Order: sequence, then structure tokens, then C-alpha cells
Amino acid sequence: MNRPASKRSTIAEIAAKAGVSIPTVSRVLNNRPDVAPGTRKRVEQVIAECGFIHSRVKNALGKESSGIIDILVPDLTNAYSVEIVRGVEKILERTELRLALSVTHDSSQLEQRWLAKVLDGATDGAILVLAHGQSQDLDTLRRHKIPFVAVDHRGELGADVPSVGATNWLGGRTAVEHLISLGHRRIAVISGDATLRCNRDRIAGYRAALEDAGIPVDPALIRPGGFAQQTGYEQTCALLDLPEPPTAIFAGSDMQAMGVYSALQARGLSVPDSMSVVGFDDIPIASIVVPALTTVRQPLVEMGRVATTMLLRLIAEEPLDSMRVELTTTLITRHSCAPLLTHRR
Amino acid sequence: MNRPASKRSTIAEIAAKAGVSIPTVSRVLNNRPDVAPGTRKRVEQVIAECGFIHSRVKNALGKESSGIIDILVPDLTNAYSVEIVRGVEKILERTELRLALSVTHDSSQLEQRWLAKVLDGATDGAILVLAHGQSQDLDTLRRHKIPFVAVDHRGELGADVPSVGATNWLGGRTAVEHLISLGHRRIAVISGDATLRCNRDRIAGYRAALEDAGIPVDPALIRPGGFAQQTGYEQTCALLDLPEPPTAIFAGSDMQAMGVYSALQARGLSVPDSMSVVGFDDIPIASIVVPALTTVRQPLVEMGRVATTMLLRLIAEEPLDSMRVELTTTLITRHSCAPLLTHRR
Repeated sequence: MNRPASKRSTIAEIAAKAGVSIPTVSRVLNNRPDVAPGTRKRVEQVIAECGFIHSRVKNALGKESSGIIDILVPDLTNAYSVEIVRGVEKILERTELRLALSVTHDSSQLEQRWLAKVLDGATDGAILVLAHGQSQDLDTLRRHKIPFVAVDHRGELGADVPSVGATNWLGGRTAVEHLISLGHRRIAVISGDATLRCNRDRIAGYRAALEDAGIPVDPALIRPGGFAQQTGYEQTCALLDLPEPPTAIFAGSDMQAMGVYSALQARGLSVPDSMSVVGFDDIPIASIVVPALTTVRQPLVEMGRVATTMLLRLIAEEPLDSMRVELTTTLITRHSCAPLLTHRR
Repeated sequence: MNRPASKRSTIAEIAAKAGVSIPTVSRVLNNRPDVAPGTRKRVEQVIAECGFIHSRVKNALGKESSGIIDILVPDLTNAYSVEIVRGVEKILERTELRLALSVTHDSSQLEQRWLAKVLDGATDGAILVLAHGQSQDLDTLRRHKIPFVAVDHRGELGADVPSVGATNWLGGRTAVEHLISLGHRRIAVISGDATLRCNRDRIAGYRAALEDAGIPVDPALIRPGGFAQQTGYEQTCALLDLPEPPTAIFAGSDMQAMGVYSALQARGLSVPDSMSVVGFDDIPIASIVVPALTTVRQPLVEMGRVATTMLLRLIAEEPLDSMRVELTTTLITRHSCAPLLTHRR
């Protein structure tokens, strides 16, 4: 049997073999762009010869590394969390670190259990996908000197919390600008909980696009709720019952957009002939449904990758370039929007 | 801060406090039905008081437990794997064990890396979701006395391999019987790779249903390929180009069924008015798409739960009731099938 275990190297050994510094190996490992192509190639080759990276270092408490990175997600039924896990895994698969996956199911009891496991000393650091954008756990982790990075899609964390997010305001603006460019003026927004930062930012982007186009903002067309499909369904029904219904709906998540699709079908209206729909997230379902959903892409896999890269630097006690990183959202145009002129009821 | 860590108990301590045997605590923990309701309640109460279970035992090599269960999945882009992970996590969240997640991306190099990490001694046991239904790793794990259970949706494992699967033959038969009951006689089957056991079994179920109804089997209507959406798309196009196209399609996975939907839309045909469609798996997308997909449900979450329960028994060196467990598939009727009489082209 091939036993790569016998030819495993530490990062320091790889650096020595490749004739580069340890931080350079770290940069290659973390897929950072600031490495000369020749150097990257040489390091990659040494890594390949070594089977894989032996990255055990003493952790912040001076204890031997556990070899484990934790990720805490609210649930696995939403593809949102799964996409982030994919990004984290992508980085860790090249290291000797393993990924311990825990799910809170939005239960503080389960969050406490996770914390107890982690405080047991068996983690090198944690990636937190926070359901409510806030967590008392952050203080506890900090007190125990456990490095962490938050993937912060909903919350408003302090400036001292390492976190990765997406450009929510820009995403909202881009979605609505697209609909305006198709001739729409009655544009509704269905969003998640309006007390959460990300949703306020997206709605602010919605308002900015309308105002830039000289279209008055109608409060009846702004419909907060939850991120789930059910909110999309219910708010669409309410919008269709307005004296003057919208001709386009911007949904705060792709799952909500699926609820919009269902409500429209139930009323005998088709997408995009009778209603244009834009989602947010670009989870896999967006490209699978018929018609494929035009949506604002949050780079979820990349957010997981960047959060992990930041965490590895924190574990190595390297400084971060920035405590807060925001990755850009982009509009992915598919088949759920049509020019207003071609619409029919 | 609440520190459940300080009042953690072993299973033996819980058994003593509840006045029951250790296997009884294990049964409650694993959600097994063979526990009297009063006993279950008493044990649950003691577990609740104890915060959570401290399940560290010496492993098969006499080493101290790592506190980690590994799960190896082919990829996280398919909801199939994610659903199984959810089931595994559901059981482990009540124990002190943590779940280490690894992804092979169908790469034998990554599988080897995983194996090296695991042989390092840092696992109590593994759940394997095998991409190809076969793995040389099984022998290696066995040689190193690392307990494992395979979730065997594609393969044909030896009788000595602990595994959990679903009733593929029955699932295929049920799907086709449903279509026959709606009056269909030209029924096509699109399946995954026909060399894999699960697909052969489903196609055999398809044949059995047709034969029982006295409908001749037309080889032109049997369309193997891959599990992906693309196969569903391509084979549907090929089926529509037949001199006598089918009126109903049984797809081997829900993802394939999504490809069937796309192909039908591209040809201007609607589901279920012009074509009835049945899927297989019942991943979340099946209930989200419009029209919601009638499908054969594989109890994926339960398969993950049962595999984990089996693994915990193997780790505790308890005998298994059976090396091979098959969970029943069930037809979930939604809106993608219609009686032949109401069909229109």
C-alpha cells in the first residue's frame, strides 16, 4: 500500500526543500495571489512530492495543535451553509487539518454543547456562520484564545471581529437597476428580517436604484419577512392583491424566489411573461429551476475559502490585511426577467 | 457563563444514575425503538441533567478515543451527500463525538490523503459514502482495525461489509406502477450508470412493473447515463426524437429529473400536461421546483442516522443485528404526473 503518511513534511521542511521562506509556503497553500508564478510552481511541486502538508503547530495557548478546524453552521437544509462549508473544505483538503462540522439548528443549547466540545481544547480555530448575526460565543472564544472568523451574512459585528461578508447594498442596487433597465417601474422587494443588517443594506440598495432612476419608493412594495420559501409565497400573494401589483419582484434569497415562483404558478401567472423575478445568493437551485433564476450571486464558496485563509493566518499568529473582508456580489442573468413591454397578464 | 463541560458524564455514569444497563442508555441515545417509554423518559432526563454524553471509550486498538467520527463523501454539490451528513450529525450532536467531514471529489489522491489522516489514529470510526460502490480503502481500514459503515447507494459490497442502503428494486417498481395506474404504457426510464448495482436494481423494478401489467418492454425506452442533470436533459431529447415518444419518464435521480424538466421546456412541452415525470431520491429541490416533483423517496437522513448507530455499536464492540440494512423507499406524490387521458401535445 502507498503510505503517504511516511513522507509527510512540515511547512518548515517544505520551505527548506523549496528554498523559500515559511510565509511563502503559507501563501501558496492559501491560494494567495502575491507569489511569483515560478516560486508557486516550485513550492507546489515540493508539496506534491511530500504527499501533503503537515501543518501542526502549537496553538495560541501553547498546546499541541489538535489538527482540527471547527465550522459551526445554523443548518444544512439550506444550500447557503453548504456552499460555505464547500469553500472551507477546499482550503483544508490541501492541509493536514481536518474539518469538524457542527450544526446549531438555531438552538442555543446545541451552540452551548458545541462550545463545551471546543473549549475541551480540541480545536485550532473556528469558522462561524452566524444565524442571527450575533453570538455571545465570540467573547467566550476570545477569552479562551481560540482564533475564529465569522462569515457574517446577516449581522453587524464589531470592528474587532474578523469576518467575511458580501456587498449587500451593491447587490440590492444591481438587482433593481437590472429590472429598471428592462423598463420596470413597479418593482417590489421581498426581504429577510428587516432588523438584520444585510437586509437593511439590500433594501437601501433597492431604494438607491429607484431614486437614481427618479422612481418614487412605494412602501407597499417593500415586504420584509424571513429568508424561507414561505415568506416568498405569502408576500407574493399579498403583492398580487394590491390595487396596483408590481411587474417585477426582487427576492432577498433564492429560496424566497422559489416561493415567489410557487405563488405565481398558483395564481396562473408565468415567469417571466407575467412577472420578472430576481433572487439573491445563487445557490445551485437557481440554475436548475425552470425558468432558470436571474439572481445576485454571493460568492459563498469563496467566502468560505477567504474565511479559512484568514483563520489559518490567525492560527499562525500572522497579522490580517483587514479584519473585515467584503466580497463583491454580481448579477447572474438567466431566464426569469423580461422587458416590461413583452409582459402580459 | 453556563459551562456544561463541568457536569459531563460517561454513559456508564448515566446508566448508574438512571438505574438501567449501559446498553439501554446506548439504545436511547441511538433512537432505537426497543426501549420502554418510561425507561426512555428516565434516561432522557438524566442525559438532559448531564448536559451531554461523554462517550470516550478506548478504541479497537486500545488507544484512547479521538472523540472523532469521520465521514467521507464524494462531493457536497449534490444534496444526496448533504442529506446523509445531516443524518449522521443528528445522532452525533447528542454525543461528545465530533464529525470530521472530508470530500473526495472522486479523486483517489484525495481519498489517499484522507486515509493517511485517519490512519494517523485520529478517528474512532468512519462512515463512507462511496462514489463508485467500491473502495480499496475498506481493506486498509479493516487492517488497521478502524470500524466503518458504508452507505452504499451505488455499489455491491461484500456480505462482510457493514452497510446501509435503500430498496432500489422496490423503488423502481413503485414508480412505474404509479405511472401505469395513471394509464401510461409508453414509459421510459433514464438511469445512472447501468453497471452499478443500484441502477440495475431500479431498472429491474421498472421491468417487473411493466411485465406485471402485461406491457412489453421496449429497449429504446431504457436510457442509462450518469446521475447528473445533463443525462436527464440529453436522454429526454433523444426520447422525444423517437418515432413513438414516451408519455411518462421515470428518472433515476431528482437531479436527472431536473434535466428532464429543462429538456421538456426547451421543446415547449409542459409537465405534467404533456409528459409525466417521476424522480428518485426526494432531495429538497423535489418539493421546491414548479411543478413539485413526484419522486421515490430514499430516506437519506435516516440512512445517515442508521449508519451512525451501527458505527457506534461497532466502536463499542457490540454485535450488529445485521451487516446490511435496507431502508424502504416510498413514493411521494406531488404534481409532476397526470393521467394519460388528460395529456396533450
